[in-house]
Amino acid sequence: MPEAPCGLAGAADALYMRPMQALHTVAPPRCIALDWGTSNLRASLLGDGGSVLASRSAPGGVMAIVERRFEAALMALAGDWIAAHRCPLVASGMVGSRQGWQEAPYLPCPAALEAAALQLTAVALAAGPTLHIAPGLRCQGSDGQFDVMRGEETQLWGAGLAPGACCLLPGTHSKWAWMGDRPDEVRAFRTYLTGELYAVLSQHSILGRGMEFDAAVPEAFEASESYLEGVRLGLAEHAQATHVIFAARTAGLMNRYPPAALPDFLSGLLIGIEIGSATRDGAPEVVTVLGDAALAERYEVALREAGLVTTRAAADATTRGQWRLAQAAGLVGSGA
Amino acid sequence: MPEAPCGLAGAADALYMRPMQALHTVAPPRCIALDWGTSNLRASLLGDGGSVLASRSAPGGVMAIVERRFEAALMALAGDWIAAHRCPLVASGMVGSRQGWQEAPYLPCPAALEAAALQLTAVALAAGPTLHIAPGLRCQGSDGQFDVMRGEETQLWGAGLAPGACCLLPGTHSKWAWMGDRPDEVRAFRTYLTGELYAVLSQHSILGRGMEFDAAVPEAFEASESYLEGVRLGLAEHAQATHVIFAARTAGLMNRYPPAALPDFLSGLLIGIEIGSATRDGAPEVVTVLGDAALAERYEVALREAGLVTTRAAADATTRGQWRLAQAAGLVGSGA
Repeated sequence: MPEAPCGLAGAADALYMRPMQALHTVAPPRCIALDWGTSNLRASLLGDGGSVLASRSAPGGVMAIVERRFEAALMALAGDWIAAHRCPLVASGMVGSRQGWQEAPYLPCPAALEAAALQLTAVALAAGPTLHIAPGLRCQGSDGQFDVMRGEETQLWGAGLAPGACCLLPGTHSKWAWMGDRPDEVRAFRTYLTGELYAVLSQHSILGRGMEFDAAVPEAFEASESYLEGVRLGLAEHAQATHVIFAARTAGLMNRYPPAALPDFLSGLLIGIEIGSATRDGAPEVVTVLGDAALAERYEVALREAGLVTTRAAADATTRGQWRLAQAAGLVGSGA
Repeated sequence: MPEAPCGLAGAADALYMRPMQALHTVAPPRCIALDWGTSNLRASLLGDGGSVLASRSAPGGVMAIVERRFEAALMALAGDWIAAHRCPLVASGMVGSRQGWQEAPYLPCPAALEAAALQLTAVALAAGPTLHIAPGLRCQGSDGQFDVMRGEETQLWGAGLAPGACCLLPGTHSKWAWMGDRPDEVRAFRTYLTGELYAVLSQHSILGRGMEFDAAVPEAFEASESYLEGVRLGLAEHAQATHVIFAARTAGLMNRYPPAALPDFLSGLLIGIEIGSATRDGAPEVVTVLGDAALAERYEVALREAGLVTTRAAADATTRGQWRLAQAAGLVGSGA
């Protein structure tokens, strides 16, 4: 059941409130959107059209919640918003997984935004309003195996992708998604463990033993020579993935690169392997990259090295997607 | 310089000595062979023809040695043998790496046993005799990258491989070696990180989180259904390695296999990926498997699943190879 659009209650909210006399010029909060992942919880207060009025985050991801105290974590971050505005809440991400607050069953691909909006999983909060959790997506590959995503589907719906587009969401579990012919339809997708492989190999394997890690995180990504060579090697030898990563060991042994250049070499190798694998059965005309700036740039360099054209999705794809879900579910009206 | 074959001194050696009156029927010790790897040190006392008179091992691998106390570790394990027999010592494995006792430079492929015997690295022991460390091998792949092995080359020379044979040495860093046309010539080889990937992924990644590990180690390998499905999937999708391993997560999420079956599924996936990759440019007629029984069986099942014919190398390939090196170097004479 759609909830009434929430009103603007009297309690002051330091993060976005204007003085009362200016209220007619301020977009009223319509929805609280939660991006609730494995490590972090981000809450955004959305106004008309999904505009972000305020946002806050905390390290209260699903893995950090003890004894299922999900509501307590939510109230700690956004209890004042919930009390003040009594908005509907929409959540996407791992909060809908089996380890999350309540399992939101997967929607099979091809999956359209409208179908997801009809399948939100409602959780009644003790505090009053209802939390609506977006379903993750499930996809069966040509190899017969299932693949899954949680959270990325909402970003895809917020990214304004054209029918047939190919979208890459890099990260711990990098996702390649292909849109269908109908608007807002995710046709298929595939997960690559690139980010997690980089982490476990550099931290726990022999490859990391020869590496030196730079504590300073540069503001922007700049492609080093070792990164580019890693990318080229990974692209060419992606069908020998579990062999070619050993080059991150031998390049050190043979003094081809100093220890400080090896993390980038391994990163390039794994990203090259991912791109080579994902495009081996046909490369898309354009790849839309959706992710945080530094990681997106890292991938864009590699995609161009593979001869692909790239474009960047808008940074607010998550809240846009959450807003569109809330809208399609009738939670915030459709006129906004 | 060759050393004089060592005599049989008087000190009793509880592990192999016969009563003095029976001495004429006992093969005299000719050589002490050390298989000195990352985790373990194994010492074997070899008699005529490389027969193993006694052997001992300790967890004194290269990574366990502190403050470069290599000789102390050796003396603790085999000091009585060294004192009693004053044999030459031959060592193979990581003891010749940069982190080892003394770096034994790599021999480039194609590499013959004779060439390795000419390039033993001598270390004079404070205790008297000389330790001769076998060189590792280096090989440059068609992708321009170097690959390395240390210890496996000695096993290859002890395995009695025919010219042109293909030999697989499974393990943490699985090696595929192809013999050349000349006898005892290693033409090329390739490392696959299969064992290490299994370890880091099952212990440190999300794939392991859904797994249950059986503490009991079965005596013999029995191929489970999940192992076989993993192998088939890995073989078919080896060119999507960093994607297809995610099936070890989704197979749990989708209740396709119980948590206790997932370790075997991942093991099958990684071994299937290795075999699919190693044979994609041409499969050998026969693959000779060289390794401990349980792991060799695990691989043989997978190799047969790939339609390959397998044979097993003799279990004493390491000491045979060490003996042959000592012989070719003139350390133990050639008449034995």
